[in-house]
Formats: sequence, C-alpha cells, structure tokens
Amino acid sequence: MTVHLVGAGPGDPELLTLRAARLLAQAEVVVHDRLVSPLILGHAAGARLIDVGKSPGEPSGSQQSINTLLVDLGRHGIETVRLKGGDPFVFGRGGEEAEALAAAGVSYTVVPGVSAALAAPMMGGAPVTHRGMSRSVAIVTGHDERGELSAVDWPGLFEASDSLVILMGAAQFGSIARQLIEAGADPDTAVLAVTRAGWESQEDTRFRLSDAEHQKLQAPTTILVGPVAQLDFRCPDPPVGYPG
Amino acid sequence: MTVHLVGAGPGDPELLTLRAARLLAQAEVVVHDRLVSPLILGHAAGARLIDVGKSPGEPSGSQQSINTLLVDLGRHGIETVRLKGGDPFVFGRGGEEAEALAAAGVSYTVVPGVSAALAAPMMGGAPVTHRGMSRSVAIVTGHDERGELSAVDWPGLFEASDSLVILMGAAQFGSIARQLIEAGADPDTAVLAVTRAGWESQEDTRFRLSDAEHQKLQAPTTILVGPVAQLDFRCPDPPVGYPG
Repeated sequence: MTVHLVGAGPGDPELLTLRAARLLAQAEVVVHDRLVSPLILGHAAGARLIDVGKSPGEPSGSQQSINTLLVDLGRHGIETVRLKGGDPFVFGRGGEEAEALAAAGVSYTVVPGVSAALAAPMMGGAPVTHRGMSRSVAIVTGHDERGELSAVDWPGLFEASDSLVILMGAAQFGSIARQLIEAGADPDTAVLAVTRAGWESQEDTRFRLSDAEHQKLQAPTTILVGPVAQLDFRCPDPPVGYPG
Repeated sequence: MTVHLVGAGPGDPELLTLRAARLLAQAEVVVHDRLVSPLILGHAAGARLIDVGKSPGEPSGSQQSINTLLVDLGRHGIETVRLKGGDPFVFGRGGEEAEALAAAGVSYTVVPGVSAALAAPMMGGAPVTHRGMSRSVAIVTGHDERGELSAVDWPGLFEASDSLVILMGAAQFGSIARQLIEAGADPDTAVLAVTRAGWESQEDTRFRLSDAEHQKLQAPTTILVGPVAQLDFRCPDPPVGYPG
C-alpha cells in the first residue's frame, strides 16, 4: 500500500501514461486537482475521488492540507493516487508532497507525465526546438505566488535560450513582454499561446511580442516565445497537394 | 491511413501514452529508433518493424532517408507509426519529418511523449523545479552535429536559469563544465547524471561541476545542473520511520 504521485499529462485523456491508467484502476482513493479531465478520472472507476480544488494562484495553505491528507491516507494503508496536471515535478509541487510523505515514513512512488511545457506548444503547431532554429528552451513559471516574479531574470532567459516557454503566466504575460522589449527583445518576436491544450475547447493565439498587452489569455495557457512560435507543423486538412 | 509521429517516452515501457499504445496496436509498419525498448515495440504485435538505427551522433544523411521512407509509406496508404525516444519535438527532429510529410501531401498526426529532459532527472531523484529553489529550467542539447556547440551561450543559460538540463551531452559535458566554471559558475554546483532512465540498467551519478571531467558518462544520459540536483526525492526503502 502506498501513495503514488502521478502526472495526468496536459489534458488530452489519451496522453495519460499506461502506468497512470493502471494505478488509477487499482486506486482506492484519488486526490486530484481541479483541471484533471473527467475522462481521465474515469479510469479510477472503483475509487473515491477527492477534488482538492487546486489551481494556479491557490494559496500555499491548501498545499499543507493536501500534504496532511496524503500522509493520513498513506498511514491508513489506503492505495492512493495523487493526480496532478502535467508532470508532478515541473512546477507541480510534487517535491513538497514527496518530502511530506518521506518525513512521515509513508511509502510512495513517482510517475512522470507529459508536461504541458513541452507538449502544449506542439499541440498548437509549434515545436519548442527545431533544427537550425532552436537548440535550447527555457521553461519558467509566470505564477507569482510569493511575489518572486521580479526575481526572474526574464531578459537573461530570453537572451540565452532560443525558445522561452511560460507556464501559468496568462495574466502576467503583458507585463513580462513589456520587460523583454524594454531589455532589447525584438518587438516582432513570434508568440504562440495555447489555452486548454488537448481539451475539446483548445484555443491557439498567435501574435507578436509587441501585441502581448492586448491579448486576453485565460488560464490554463502555455506561452511559447521565439522564432519557433512562427512554425505550424499541424497537418494541413486536407493535406496540401494530397495525391489521392 | 496516415503516418503518426509518436513519442515513446524516456525508456520505461509503462511511460508510454495510451494513444501511443493504441496506434502501435493498429500499425501496419513501425519505423523506430535504436533506443526504443522491445517491451514498447511489443505493443505493435501485428506490425512490420523497421529499425532505422538512429542514435545521437548519426549523420543527417540518414534523416533524409527516414523522411523519404515515411513519405513512401504514407503515399502507399500504409498505417505507419514513426516511434521516437522521448518526445518527437524536443530535439527529436520530428519537425523535419512533419515538414517532409506536409510537403509531400501525406496526412500525419503528432503524439507527444514524456520527455527525458524533464522526467529523467526525477527518475534519478531530483525534480527539475522545486519551490523556493528553482523556478526556471533551461533544456539544451549537447549534441554537436554541425559544429554548432560553440554557438550555445552556456554561461548565459546557466546564469539566467535556476536549473540546466543537458540532453545528448554525455561526451561533451567535461568541456561544457569547464566553460561554465571559467565563466564564474560555482565549482561546487551539484550535478545529477541519469543514464538509461527508466531502463532496468538505469545508473545515476551525482558529482560536483568541478569533477565533471573525471566522469565517464555514456549515452543516453540526461544531465541536471543546479541546486535541485542535490535533492533526492526517491522514496527511502524502507521508508525512514515507517510506522509499520
């Protein structure tokens, strides 16, 4: 009996891993975030579902109560899946949950998931890297939980990496873009924002860095900044020049 | 009938996505890289397997012949999975294959996978981000196919991001570390190298940046540099203080 810290992927139910699906099917209790799809939770047919209602911007007090809940479930020998959007260890606070479980002597496992940071841009058509165009990508959270946002070296990240991915930055992106331009970034730099990646309601927005302040982006959104954001590798429908 | 560009994940067969497993089961032909696990290929019981033998360091000529093969298969209406380690669009050259298919008018889909860039460090115990310690991670390839390695701003990436992940850099890491230290990086900066992440034969190596030149790292290895590389969130076995 153990607690499993499991990534649910970016939203699309078929981007769940085989291990996540198996652990959900075996679980007695599933402790999940607000943004996990009902189709994913459907794998846990026999489990009690606990929505801990966590979403970007939630105060850290609720993280403490989640840690306590997981420790309690583990101590009672209840087979538990802690299901988080994306990957639990990419701005997912899985590390804090692992620490709490380890400190309490509760056995746990860790199951990576497809992270929206890398997958969501491609679901909107643009790869985060591309030969001859981008050989590095920096991923950063725009979520300013403790007023640390000003501590991020935005111009430095933009300058040093060929592509920049911002998670949980929909509300702050206008001001981030302004900082980048003031530090010398080309105002025409391409941006791709992918909202609700992999959901039926996915929306893609393409614009220039200088237009960032006029966008109304809603969470959850993954933002890709850099030359690769101009690319669109989704299959044309019907494919251009399809010979059939 | 179509060609699917599919990520196989970092190696562990259970980190395959549900969609990848389904497409493999339906495939007539699977065109795969050398490093994809036989257990993963086992999902494609009814398919002809074509090992295109690609591994890091392969000359780009072979990429051209893979593109041609995929176009030919697609044109003949053969249900084809192009299976790549990790995620096809994170240094996976999936973009080039998508471009070739689109140019030829062949229909295709894209299926993200769990990228070793984010998952492999955690499989060795260390998350790429952690609250209060790292709020940004830069991912870069150390693979120097066209002598471009010197074009990477290693000190800039290291300086601007809290964590640095290097893929395909096992052979070059000694020289990269030397560059970082010469540019002012703390020689005591923690490093975690995870070789063959998720395979039975996974090996983790923890060392300081100043010791990088003495390591014998073998491909495929994911290297994490930064304070988070000190962390080890794998579950203690038996868990410390487990109440029994």
